[in-house]
Amino acid sequence: MTEGKLLSVKEIGQHNSPSDCWIVVDGQVWDLTEFHQEHPGGPAIILKYAGRDASKAYNEAHSPSVIKKTLRQDQFKGVLDYSTINSEWLKQPPTENSRVMLDNEKPPLTTLINAHDFETVASKTVSKKTWAFYSSAATDLITRDANKSCFDRIWFRPRVMRNVRSIDMRTTVQGTDLSFPLFVSPAAMARMIHPDGECAIARACESKGIMQGVSNNSSFSVEELVQAAPNGSFFFQLYVNPNREKSAELLHQISSLPQFKAVHITVDAAWPGKREADERVKADEDMGVPMSNVKAKNDTKGGGIGRLMSGNIDPGLTWDDIAFVRKHTHLPVCLKGVMSADDAILAMEAGVDGLLLSNHGGRNLDTSPPSIITLLELHRRCPEIFDKMEIYVDSGIRRGTDILKAIALGATAVGMGRSMLFATNYGQEGVEHLIDSKFTLPFFL
Amino acid sequence: MTEGKLLSVKEIGQHNSPSDCWIVVDGQVWDLTEFHQEHPGGPAIILKYAGRDASKAYNEAHSPSVIKKTLRQDQFKGVLDYSTINSEWLKQPPTENSRVMLDNEKPPLTTLINAHDFETVASKTVSKKTWAFYSSAATDLITRDANKSCFDRIWFRPRVMRNVRSIDMRTTVQGTDLSFPLFVSPAAMARMIHPDGECAIARACESKGIMQGVSNNSSFSVEELVQAAPNGSFFFQLYVNPNREKSAELLHQISSLPQFKAVHITVDAAWPGKREADERVKADEDMGVPMSNVKAKNDTKGGGIGRLMSGNIDPGLTWDDIAFVRKHTHLPVCLKGVMSADDAILAMEAGVDGLLLSNHGGRNLDTSPPSIITLLELHRRCPEIFDKMEIYVDSGIRRGTDILKAIALGATAVGMGRSMLFATNYGQEGVEHLIDSKFTLPFFL
Amino acid sequence: MTEGKLLSVKEIGQHNSPSDCWIVVDGQVWDLTEFHQEHPGGPAIILKYAGRDASKAYNEAHSPSVIKKTLRQDQFKGVLDYSTINSEWLKQPPTENSRVMLDNEKPPLTTLINAHDFETVASKTVSKKTWAFYSSAATDLITRDANKSCFDRIWFRPRVMRNVRSIDMRTTVQGTDLSFPLFVSPAAMARMIHPDGECAIARACESKGIMQGVSNNSSFSVEELVQAAPNGSFFFQLYVNPNREKSAELLHQISSLPQFKAVHITVDAAWPGKREADERVKADEDMGVPMSNVKAKNDTKGGGIGRLMSGNIDPGLTWDDIAFVRKHTHLPVCLKGVMSADDAILAMEAGVDGLLLSNHGGRNLDTSPPSIITLLELHRRCPEIFDKMEIYVDSGIRRGTDILKAIALGATAVGMGRSMLFATNYGQEGVEHLIDSKFTLPFFL
Amino acid sequence: MTEGKLLSVKEIGQHNSPSDCWIVVDGQVWDLTEFHQEHPGGPAIILKYAGRDASKAYNEAHSPSVIKKTLRQDQFKGVLDYSTINSEWLKQPPTENSRVMLDNEKPPLTTLINAHDFETVASKTVSKKTWAFYSSAATDLITRDANKSCFDRIWFRPRVMRNVRSIDMRTTVQGTDLSFPLFVSPAAMARMIHPDGECAIARACESKGIMQGVSNNSSFSVEELVQAAPNGSFFFQLYVNPNREKSAELLHQISSLPQFKAVHITVDAAWPGKREADERVKADEDMGVPMSNVKAKNDTKGGGIGRLMSGNIDPGLTWDDIAFVRKHTHLPVCLKGVMSADDAILAMEAGVDGLLLSNHGGRNLDTSPPSIITLLELHRRCPEIFDKMEIYVDSGIRRGTDILKAIALGATAVGMGRSMLFATNYGQEGVEHLIDSKFTLPFFL
Repeated sequence: MTEGKLLSVKEIGQHNSPSDCWIVVDGQVWDLTEFHQEHPGGPAIILKYAGRDASKAYNEAHSPSVIKKTLRQDQFKGVLDYSTINSEWLKQPPTENSRVMLDNEKPPLTTLINAHDFETVASKTVSKKTWAFYSSAATDLITRDANKSCFDRIWFRPRVMRNVRSIDMRTTVQGTDLSFPLFVSPAAMARMIHPDGECAIARACESKGIMQGVSNNSSFSVEELVQAAPNGSFFFQLYVNPNREKSAELLHQISSLPQFKAVHITVDAAWPGKREADERVKADEDMGVPMSNVKAKNDTKGGGIGRLMSGNIDPGLTWDDIAFVRKHTHLPVCLKGVMSADDAILAMEAGVDGLLLSNHGGRNLDTSPPSIITLLELHRRCPEIFDKMEIYVDSGIRRGTDILKAIALGATAVGMGRSMLFATNYGQEGVEHLIDSKFTLPFFL
Repeated sequence: MTEGKLLSVKEIGQHNSPSDCWIVVDGQVWDLTEFHQEHPGGPAIILKYAGRDASKAYNEAHSPSVIKKTLRQDQFKGVLDYSTINSEWLKQPPTENSRVMLDNEKPPLTTLINAHDFETVASKTVSKKTWAFYSSAATDLITRDANKSCFDRIWFRPRVMRNVRSIDMRTTVQGTDLSFPLFVSPAAMARMIHPDGECAIARACESKGIMQGVSNNSSFSVEELVQAAPNGSFFFQLYVNPNREKSAELLHQISSLPQFKAVHITVDAAWPGKREADERVKADEDMGVPMSNVKAKNDTKGGGIGRLMSGNIDPGLTWDDIAFVRKHTHLPVCLKGVMSADDAILAMEAGVDGLLLSNHGGRNLDTSPPSIITLLELHRRCPEIFDKMEIYVDSGIRRGTDILKAIALGATAVGMGRSMLFATNYGQEGVEHLIDSKFTLPFFL
Repeated sequence: MTEGKLLSVKEIGQHNSPSDCWIVVDGQVWDLTEFHQEHPGGPAIILKYAGRDASKAYNEAHSPSVIKKTLRQDQFKGVLDYSTINSEWLKQPPTENSRVMLDNEKPPLTTLINAHDFETVASKTVSKKTWAFYSSAATDLITRDANKSCFDRIWFRPRVMRNVRSIDMRTTVQGTDLSFPLFVSPAAMARMIHPDGECAIARACESKGIMQGVSNNSSFSVEELVQAAPNGSFFFQLYVNPNREKSAELLHQISSLPQFKAVHITVDAAWPGKREADERVKADEDMGVPMSNVKAKNDTKGGGIGRLMSGNIDPGLTWDDIAFVRKHTHLPVCLKGVMSADDAILAMEAGVDGLLLSNHGGRNLDTSPPSIITLLELHRRCPEIFDKMEIYVDSGIRRGTDILKAIALGATAVGMGRSMLFATNYGQEGVEHLIDSKFTLPFFL
Repeated sequence: MTEGKLLSVKEIGQHNSPSDCWIVVDGQVWDLTEFHQEHPGGPAIILKYAGRDASKAYNEAHSPSVIKKTLRQDQFKGVLDYSTINSEWLKQPPTENSRVMLDNEKPPLTTLINAHDFETVASKTVSKKTWAFYSSAATDLITRDANKSCFDRIWFRPRVMRNVRSIDMRTTVQGTDLSFPLFVSPAAMARMIHPDGECAIARACESKGIMQGVSNNSSFSVEELVQAAPNGSFFFQLYVNPNREKSAELLHQISSLPQFKAVHITVDAAWPGKREADERVKADEDMGVPMSNVKAKNDTKGGGIGRLMSGNIDPGLTWDDIAFVRKHTHLPVCLKGVMSADDAILAMEAGVDGLLLSNHGGRNLDTSPPSIITLLELHRRCPEIFDKMEIYVDSGIRRGTDILKAIALGATAVGMGRSMLFATNYGQEGVEHLIDSKFTLPFFL
């Protein structure tokens, strides 16, 4: 086969598209227009060399005999006329994006392949203040780190030879159909990272069929959110105000919006967490504020955005307040921030509709237990709870495998907070990309 | 509302104080004189932009509609006259302290937000010798590190929905009222870090209502300390001298001062610890001493400030000496440095009034158990001890959560030594700042 | 003995070969032609100084008296004539390879002394794409790292005073005699690292007497491999194709080659692993592909070579397919990728001939259990399995001690995949060198 | 007291010796000739300022009032005449050795304060080859590291208020009186680090009253060693030779020397360890040896000094050989390298006189158990062994606390090998310094 029609590089180079694709391997010219779609290694690698010499790439993967055995005789087009080779032909096709990325520039969304990537990009591209507020956790970060490491220490016991050709990940949360047992955990002030803020998240959740938890401190009002995503599903995270009137008013407002499916009362924020990264940014800023009496006042109160927002949270919240909330809403009432089986049992007795096991992403009281550990504790202390209400888990979820572990251990659905904020760095498209990874690659977020 | 009176930057700029505060958001001018005090995000962020354009900061946190919904119509003052914008207007308000800090310069006290910060600052700003003496611990530092890491491995089981609107942290130690279950553990030679030394600590403890343990090797005499803080509460840490006469004399002196509430006999220093950081400074110094015979003598004895001070400590101390101490004082007698339930039981039998579970901050015998572990051992081996005497804990306390853990596990009060010395770097104000953090932010030192 | 014939450096320098070897020690000249072979420290160190002054090296190891006591009087040749010393004589013999190695250059094979070295060399000398494909593992690499660390946490209980003068490491796998209980785990596309690819491995295995597992995605066809190593022993790793006809055809082809001794059905690849290092190379490459519609298509599918190859793997594989495979081959049928005793028990019931406990080198589902742990689980849950079929282990084997541990815990033989690929970087000789280390130094690969 | 005789700096400067010592504190001149000996902080700090201004050092440690209260009125000499101050006076006394140390220069012995220091100094100052041979351990160094870390994980339970004014650390080993339960573990070729090699160790052991184990591969002969330390106590470490005649001869030679008290048969070296640091030096060296046939021969055999020496060790050693050894010596016979209770029990049955629990410092088989763990296993499996023979421990001993732990757990005496070699870097004085630290500072090597 070293014999055949002599073909010039110019002629070969014209067959350079999916609909007319020739390549050269070891001096022989083949027509792969038909074959490239069936190529076990995918069409892209072939099309990359359409109209060019693919010998090097071919030989890295295949024995010399394969091409002849695989293709038909009529797909052999001739032999390369070496005398026509020019400098253009000798160049390799472009293989890497040679454009230099600046360190504080967002890389293309397609190059982000997991939740950690979104966090890394945010750490480099958002303001110091935003990064501090989103990323910080309480004091020594022990709970924050344990949230993730506890998932990492749970091992699968994978079974084999089960037919998994078609799998169904749909579920329902408080009666609402969702495409996947994942929701966005409520997190404050998404506008700090993107002008569309919570609206971007709302649109992404709507298009992907998952539920969004809306923070009491959302940058956008609930009306604006349902306007952005009229077919979306939401729940509302409520900080009970020392002034109960204000909370009652808010509950009525929420309850009038059919897109809202539940209310989550935050129960772990009687005192704001000491988030030191956040405090340091605040302390530095205060040094620049010229009105010293105001500064002094802030000093006493402590620093950080988290603390500033805590003025409207009642440290006097008790189990009696569930009746108060029920009085002002027809929606299912859940508790966010339960960290012990003892309180889960009290919640059962109080007849709440769901529990979000959460330590606030490690942001409130350091050395609080990881929520996946609390989930295990429920199995030991009050297994009947899984029949009586829905149990959700957040804090530390980074991978699809984390979600699967929580579901396998009895959770109804799982929330991600920080990662969703970091994805909002790219607006609606970023949040969709983060959720997408999950659907096409279910257990490997 | 894009219509309204045109306002020049010059006019707007005059409303730049808490009592007359205008800001610009997206071209509209608002009067926030009244509102800034109720701002959920705190007044400082608004006052920072008083008389200026706050659009960027506003939009990071809020939806465009919020301001209109929140403020009254009469608080809308007009629209920015863009033609009046000048370079001064376009400047951002100062946001960071741009002054360069030298590495060996103490940063402003307000930027120190926890005990670790005081340690870091001390490590950079005090003399090599002082740092070595204060920071060093025995040989491989295993006990020193475990002191802290054992606290980190104790997890809270946080309960929720309890009314914690008002909490009361007062306690009593040996009958003395304190505002918080914290005391200063006795530590030698505070003058090395600040000329006011132990007097600074005394004044801070007095003003904050906590007790000060005075070292047998204090830079200041007990008389000087009670003079500095006549309303303070103290206990005295006693090394029993091989010459018992000297100890008796000292006990009489202490007992005559009403500010002294107890005596703590140190029982873990029969042999001085091998603190190698300290020894290395000593070894380097000796190389410069010209009188070689003296140097040789020191060599034999070993190095370090700790060892030099050990000449007046009796390795022959036994349980019989408690009777000796009682004979010379009417004060409650406690033992400092108990590290096992076996000795705690003997202490009960000997009728002492309190135990300070302590491994000398890891400074004496490496791989001695962390005191929080000894505290747990008491619960298993001799739980009745908590009814018979007061139990204190020190060694490794760095966070308010550490204090809470010890108290929750039965301790009467908790001591901090090294951190207090490092805070003394800033004199009385530094020590107050360290204690203050605790009072305003109780569990998050 | 300071007296004797004066010998010039020129004369001494002529006795510089194994068959005529003089050396100088402390001015005395000795003939070591006879002795150097019996030297307890080996002959090389002596020959290095043949015809030269060996005083320094001698004195590092021996007392001055040894040489005189050890050698015969007639081996004393005289004393060095110091007046003849010249600059040439004073030079030390060459002791290190002073040639500078470029960072991306393969060092000489003799300087590679373990499997880690082969990996290190490959990381520096192969293409970015090859390195990513071979070295990558699933998501957070937890399983990949645990594969190795679990071996490291298994301790020997070495026995002493056993006669181990002659040891026999031969074994049989599915009735085939092997010189050592080791095989090459099937791994795809060895041509990426060396043009001889799997043929190099085949020849090395043949010469060393171990079995080679051939990947379904081998760069070379099975015919080419048996041609390369006609006396070799092979097994074939089968991905069952969604199109069963194709698999049947392949089975017939394999079964007709007498060198193939077994078929291993891969059962752990219903969904391809998310190997992110691999994905990142792919994502970068895609950015350079000009045909955007193709690129978009790849994006949806996910990236990496592993995923591209997964199109021909059936996620609908079940236990019924074992009957299908048996129908098309007379060879023993084994399962590759079993990760639980539950499935091992089902495999027993299904009557398969062997199990390869494997988590795909940590490449498929992260936080799958290390196979050595699964091996231990079999002992607890179904110890009878070791009598009914052969059990193999791979994933994480790097040392001879790892092999010994698996064998001691009941494995029939042990597979190495990645290390063999990295050794292929040096072709057949590299693979032989890797295996060789094992035979001469059995427990210390 | 600001009044008094005006004293010039010249006059003050003349009182600058221990027998005539004045110092200046805050402008007042005091005579400390008498007091400096009783100074609680030691005399050195005072003498450093003899004839100079000590205000700064004084004020770091003391309140201003102390000096007046402590000294007699007649010790007050006058006040400093500030007008006489000159530049000489203003200089501080020398406080640090300002001489620059070269990185490969040995620092003064007095600045070495623990065994780690000797190792660090050796790593920088000995030849690459010597460092590799002494410091290397088997393959992944897991056992070597565990040897130390297991000691670090054993916690003391310190008791207090025991009279420890006088303590007695003497002991006997095989009937020989020693001043401390420590011996030098046999290690090969000490001449590599110092020309005096094992003789330096012998003299140091003799002067300090501890026993020296002599390696079969000692640089010096046993005769030379007993000549160096005629009052020393030794035991001999024997590798049983495949040629038993040679071992018999050696045993007779040893047994004729009254300084030798026991024979330790090494039982853990049937195959030499794979010490890769050592091998790498060898591999590099071989590349420079011009005679390629010799090089090739070494290649097959493997590399490293350890392997070269293994030719004279019989892998066929069995329990029967104990009778052989007994036949040729009257000395107590011990086994070195026992690593399991199973073999300890066999040793009891064989009636040997002592066991050295050892894993060869982690140099032979990696993932062998730390000897302190084997010691604990004896307590569980055969506690009676402690009544029947002496049990020694080595491998990983670095601190006095390590020795104490082994003794507290039943060992008769403890061996240090590598550290002693590293101390030999300073000859006899270095070894004495290492041992000295132990005697004066018993538990804090």
